[in-house]
Amino acid sequence: MAFEGIRLSKSQSEAVSAVFFEADTQNSGCIDVKLVPALVRKLLGRQPHGLDPHIVRIKAEASSTKGLIQFTDFVGVMADAMAQTTNWGALKTHVGGYVGIDTIQEQIRRKALKKGFEFNIMVVGASGLGKSTLVNTLFKAKVSRRSCATEEDKTPIIPKTVQIKSVGHVIEEKSVRLKLTVTDTPGFGDHINNENCWLPIIEYINEQYEKYLGEEISVNRKRHIPDTRVHCCLYFIAPTGHSLKPLDLEFMSRLDKCVNIVPIISKADTLTVEERQTFKKKIRDELDSHGISTYPMKHLDEDDEDMVVNTNLRDKMPFAVVGSDKVYQVSGKPILGRRTNWGLIEVENRAHCEFANLRDMLIRSHMQDLKDVTESIHYEKFRRETLKGREKAVNGLEESRC
Amino acid sequence: MAFEGIRLSKSQSEAVSAVFFEADTQNSGCIDVKLVPALVRKLLGRQPHGLDPHIVRIKAEASSTKGLIQFTDFVGVMADAMAQTTNWGALKTHVGGYVGIDTIQEQIRRKALKKGFEFNIMVVGASGLGKSTLVNTLFKAKVSRRSCATEEDKTPIIPKTVQIKSVGHVIEEKSVRLKLTVTDTPGFGDHINNENCWLPIIEYINEQYEKYLGEEISVNRKRHIPDTRVHCCLYFIAPTGHSLKPLDLEFMSRLDKCVNIVPIISKADTLTVEERQTFKKKIRDELDSHGISTYPMKHLDEDDEDMVVNTNLRDKMPFAVVGSDKVYQVSGKPILGRRTNWGLIEVENRAHCEFANLRDMLIRSHMQDLKDVTESIHYEKFRRETLKGREKAVNGLEESRC
Repeated sequence: MAFEGIRLSKSQSEAVSAVFFEADTQNSGCIDVKLVPALVRKLLGRQPHGLDPHIVRIKAEASSTKGLIQFTDFVGVMADAMAQTTNWGALKTHVGGYVGIDTIQEQIRRKALKKGFEFNIMVVGASGLGKSTLVNTLFKAKVSRRSCATEEDKTPIIPKTVQIKSVGHVIEEKSVRLKLTVTDTPGFGDHINNENCWLPIIEYINEQYEKYLGEEISVNRKRHIPDTRVHCCLYFIAPTGHSLKPLDLEFMSRLDKCVNIVPIISKADTLTVEERQTFKKKIRDELDSHGISTYPMKHLDEDDEDMVVNTNLRDKMPFAVVGSDKVYQVSGKPILGRRTNWGLIEVENRAHCEFANLRDMLIRSHMQDLKDVTESIHYEKFRRETLKGREKAVNGLEESRC
Repeated sequence: MAFEGIRLSKSQSEAVSAVFFEADTQNSGCIDVKLVPALVRKLLGRQPHGLDPHIVRIKAEASSTKGLIQFTDFVGVMADAMAQTTNWGALKTHVGGYVGIDTIQEQIRRKALKKGFEFNIMVVGASGLGKSTLVNTLFKAKVSRRSCATEEDKTPIIPKTVQIKSVGHVIEEKSVRLKLTVTDTPGFGDHINNENCWLPIIEYINEQYEKYLGEEISVNRKRHIPDTRVHCCLYFIAPTGHSLKPLDLEFMSRLDKCVNIVPIISKADTLTVEERQTFKKKIRDELDSHGISTYPMKHLDEDDEDMVVNTNLRDKMPFAVVGSDKVYQVSGKPILGRRTNWGLIEVENRAHCEFANLRDMLIRSHMQDLKDVTESIHYEKFRRETLKGREKAVNGLEESRC
């Protein structure tokens, strides 16, 4: 059993040894392998970030004999665990005075600020559900134009097949520059027969992964690989108040393994407060019973803190939203909203609709996480499958040659 | 000529078109290709981060005929340039109100804080130059032990060959956790014949690159690849006051292409202020005339701001330092220093020695840059050469088969 861990210093070895021999009550030089996870926790703390307790258990078992583990093997398991995390609990080294390592955060911030940030969002849903308006409301800018209308007469022209249209923008706020790519999918769900209308969308998403992979594995790769991968797919559900349509279920169950799907109920001003709650509950149940996992996925919560925040979000989703790019003056203040004869619905008012919840999640709390999940889960899955496929193809070729 | 750029929105196309036709004074539909870089600057700003003006020129020339470029090709060059940077100057999109994209900095900070940071430092130099003491002074912790002494009698035992000893530590400050690996190289330069004593060091450095590359290209790679690559090699120069030794020059000219070398004059308390200045100047000249590029490398300055900061550093290097882990009370304050009969040299006092300059660069201003240069320059070079070598080997095998 080889360990890839780090080398321990004298004081670390002593601490590890103390814990081991305390557990070795029989003084036999061995301890029950089942005790190992508890001892690791004792040394490193309750929840060391990045360390998978499952893997610790497997490694410990692999280096045990008849359920018992020796001291040297235990040190190996510990060193290995320590290499996975920076939560070293009791094993960390005492610092006598200010060193300045906290400045690394500012160093990273300045570098990231110079480079700027990237975010790619895709909107999917039948025409007339307010996709462009919502994205424009989210970013308070004209980042998406109605794609089904011609310039002159504004008569909707529905394309014969689903199209994919991406437009790039840079928006800036407090000297933070964000390159935002909005991908629209005009024609989705607009036909008599909508079979396979998800295909061009899957293809587009995979093409972006393919492009990134091609650059990542090329010998002379770019220093910064341009990221065109779709970080978030906003799926627009019609505010019927009944249930999801077969196309909704079909699309989401096909796409949830390759992109972060955030379903939303659009044009929610047509639903009363009770209807909205019932509809949302219905949708959550349907997604559940079809095994569709929307963002944020439960199994990806990294720690207790994540779990609390995300469970709270999941209980409120899908958000019922209203978009608007019209500004009204309400007691002297500019308010984004929609005015009707019976009142003004304020888009950003949490009492009126859940637009603010959606915006907070997408932009202010989970934007980086959407990117991280895209990178470490969806893209990695694509990469793994593609490379496995290529290996198989090469092996097949080799065999046919021999 | 294929462009990989982004798709332009209507207002962006209009702005690009306006600039082009303003330059097309002859109304011929073409402009001189030499004008392109200036027009790109006009649209995107003087110094767009990440955009190489050289590449813009090459792309423009490749899509020109007889020194002239057409509008459509110009748009292609622009779109390509825009994909490389987030500095979009006049082409950025207006935002009407607070969106909250500046929060992404805090999102990234929180995620990085959870994960913790890694830094790997190597110390090279003959025994007795105070390597362990200096590293302990840098991090104000016992992170390195005298490796040439036995525990009992403290008589130096010089190993027969150069050894490589890495020890890992986690130090914590204001809830920032840094996993620090200190690699010592006992035996370097301590023998009668020091030929090839740099070999084990080059080997170690390359082994870490190899390990990282192996993980990076493996199909089922880890979510977080443990980084054991050496981010900084502190090279200790003896305070002779004369010049560099042949071994110093040999080592640095062999290693400067694969690791960030920071040369320092150690135990500088033996030099008077004048001797120190002359010695430093002499060393800079010698490094220059031997074509040795130490960190921070001139050709890697990314912008004017970098250049100003780094030129200032380069003019003061190599830093003449004194290390100490002894604390003295000076007017009630604890001071790290060395007391002699003729005075107390205060290690962190900028008037006494340049330890504070070294610490500021290594930890407080350039730690992340040391990691970035290791990743994007040294590791990339290793990766490129290794993959090219493998490609050649495979092709050779194929040919010999056919």
